Amino acid sequence: MTPDQVVEQAVRAVKRARRYTDNVEFSPEDAGRSDEDFLCRIIEATIDAGATTINIPDTVGYNIPHQFGATIKSLIERVPNSDRAVFSAHCHNDLGLAVANSLSAVLNGARQVECTINGLGERAGNTSLEELVMAVRTRQDVFDCDTNIDTTHILAASRLVSSVTGFIVQPNKAIVGANAFAHEAGIHQDGVLKHRETYEIMRAEDVGWNANKLVMGKHSGRNAFKVRLTELGVEFDSEESLNDAFRRFKELADKKHEIFDEDLQALVSETQTEASESIKLVSLKVCTETGEENTATVVLSIDDKEQTATAKTSGAVDATFSAISSLVDFEINLQLYSVSNVTQGTDALGEVNVRLEHNGRIINGQGVDTDIITASAKAYIHGLNKIMAATDRAHPQI
Amino acid sequence: MTPDQVVEQAVRAVKRARRYTDNVEFSPEDAGRSDEDFLCRIIEATIDAGATTINIPDTVGYNIPHQFGATIKSLIERVPNSDRAVFSAHCHNDLGLAVANSLSAVLNGARQVECTINGLGERAGNTSLEELVMAVRTRQDVFDCDTNIDTTHILAASRLVSSVTGFIVQPNKAIVGANAFAHEAGIHQDGVLKHRETYEIMRAEDVGWNANKLVMGKHSGRNAFKVRLTELGVEFDSEESLNDAFRRFKELADKKHEIFDEDLQALVSETQTEASESIKLVSLKVCTETGEENTATVVLSIDDKEQTATAKTSGAVDATFSAISSLVDFEINLQLYSVSNVTQGTDALGEVNVRLEHNGRIINGQGVDTDIITASAKAYIHGLNKIMAATDRAHPQI
Repeated sequence: MTPDQVVEQAVRAVKRARRYTDNVEFSPEDAGRSDEDFLCRIIEATIDAGATTINIPDTVGYNIPHQFGATIKSLIERVPNSDRAVFSAHCHNDLGLAVANSLSAVLNGARQVECTINGLGERAGNTSLEELVMAVRTRQDVFDCDTNIDTTHILAASRLVSSVTGFIVQPNKAIVGANAFAHEAGIHQDGVLKHRETYEIMRAEDVGWNANKLVMGKHSGRNAFKVRLTELGVEFDSEESLNDAFRRFKELADKKHEIFDEDLQALVSETQTEASESIKLVSLKVCTETGEENTATVVLSIDDKEQTATAKTSGAVDATFSAISSLVDFEINLQLYSVSNVTQGTDALGEVNVRLEHNGRIINGQGVDTDIITASAKAYIHGLNKIMAATDRAHPQI
Repeated sequence: MTPDQVVEQAVRAVKRARRYTDNVEFSPEDAGRSDEDFLCRIIEATIDAGATTINIPDTVGYNIPHQFGATIKSLIERVPNSDRAVFSAHCHNDLGLAVANSLSAVLNGARQVECTINGLGERAGNTSLEELVMAVRTRQDVFDCDTNIDTTHILAASRLVSSVTGFIVQPNKAIVGANAFAHEAGIHQDGVLKHRETYEIMRAEDVGWNANKLVMGKHSGRNAFKVRLTELGVEFDSEESLNDAFRRFKELADKKHEIFDEDLQALVSETQTEASESIKLVSLKVCTETGEENTATVVLSIDDKEQTATAKTSGAVDATFSAISSLVDFEINLQLYSVSNVTQGTDALGEVNVRLEHNGRIINGQGVDTDIITASAKAYIHGLNKIMAATDRAHPQI
């Protein structure tokens, strides 16, 4: 297409979109590396056509903060009708600069930032919401705007996203990593004790961290359980799902001495994702012995019919997955397998994340249990159920 | 101390250090938030006293790129003898800005950056070496300097650090995350196929990624094994360690169909960390069954004497760790347990990382095996051996 044709198409697209909504965002891909004169021309035309947001993407994460900010500033200055649209930054993190580029855009007039929780996104991801929000908030001396986000839910949101996507957060990730607020150096610890602000620019509580405190035990009642979960921001959609979660809590309390907030969150997240499962784990027995093959025997309920399978291979998890997959008649490739403990200690709950591929589609499954093999089986079955549900729903022709 | 006393102490310390080396770095903690007039005064005095590097730390990760760069620029301009020292940036990542702040420092005259592989460091970590190096290299149009680092070893270095420290790298981490070079969106994939530079600002090979290609199988010989490892940058310190690694390779090839570069690296890393172990795993048998307690029976060789223990708990890994720790007479707390698969597929090698705490000291252990329970046992034993070695060496009084 010629430049004239590109402008014409963009204007037509924006006008068409305005027929359906008053809120139209125009986003010229790879704007961060585009010719600025042409960019000014197409932005002016699309604002005239009705675009209310102009999004400037750094599609390949190539920009450097001062330069990206200068681009935003120049565009706002040069485009005559720029006051009629909100300018937005959409940055990728290929060089680790998505947050810095977005902040530079904000300092130069952008008033929308396209973010993702945990910085997820294609390749090295996009602007991390938690880092951007906390930078703007912590540096109110520099930024003359705020996000109005209730930051105390950031950690819970991060954990939920991590659990659903199977993308873990590294311990040294800013704001939401397990170590983000841990002071190791003795001199720093001393400083924090003496004068907290010396080493803390943000309070851990402000983003939802709390002391990993013991909240519930074997003898906690249903009401205490419900109250604590409400405090953690969890709502149940029915009495039934509350009862189901409470039943699991009691089972867990039998196996585990100390139950932490994180255990409760994992428990509830498991309850809430378990709806409409056609495959259920009835029982599992695995024996592993060094020098021998591992044997896994699994009993599944598939559409309410019990079926048993046994597999022998060189790993306990491998044998478990082989036994399970022998009972379903579709091809599954395991792309990722990871385990983390939800809390500390040897009786911690283990959370297993698997990523399964089926006919080119990627599905994540999660399972939580005090036993890692059982958690693995649950994660695999969770993924299979998602594949079956999606097959039923989205592609009835398959 | 009064400001005069602080300057005096700093000068004395630098002078003293110069008695032992010509290369002295002076580092005023939290310089990024300090009074600039005082900073100029103490820097001038310490350069006069012989400091050759002036390090400007943003100790709490509070700075914003344009501001940190402006500080560096101003200090270099205002300190009369600044030409006699190299200015360095030491940034923390609390707001996710360590790399951007360091790059801003470089643009404003810093010629040393204090980095860590994978961005490790206290709290949210420090400047990530791989991101900084690749930003400077990719944007040679902006930076009038280079790091002269052979970037093709970055990924191997990242994996080694990750394995030794037990700090995993999240998949969406720039440069070294598993997804950093994966294009998901169809339109991007199409673009990459048609014209690679459209969406790739760096080549994955430049940082050491290669296709996850099949390199070795059951019938590969010792020489092919050695040649491939040499290509991967692995050197053996003796024929014995080569033979030991090759023996493990053969064992692995019996259990696993496809052996990838990552498998070889894991294998070698395991071989190289196994030296001088006083506790060895002889055999392990674990049975796990839903609804039942798990039983683990472990036989260890401790100082060449075989000992057996059995433990029953609610998790296979927990039972294994309990059995092992019942055979050693010191207190161990498990602080972190994580598993990742080294390669894809259900017969992948599993790598287990544990973090153990003993008398306030933190030790990381790693184990690799096709069986996750065995890998867990190896990781735990690896950690115990490190604790014992360190106890022997560093604290003979204990």
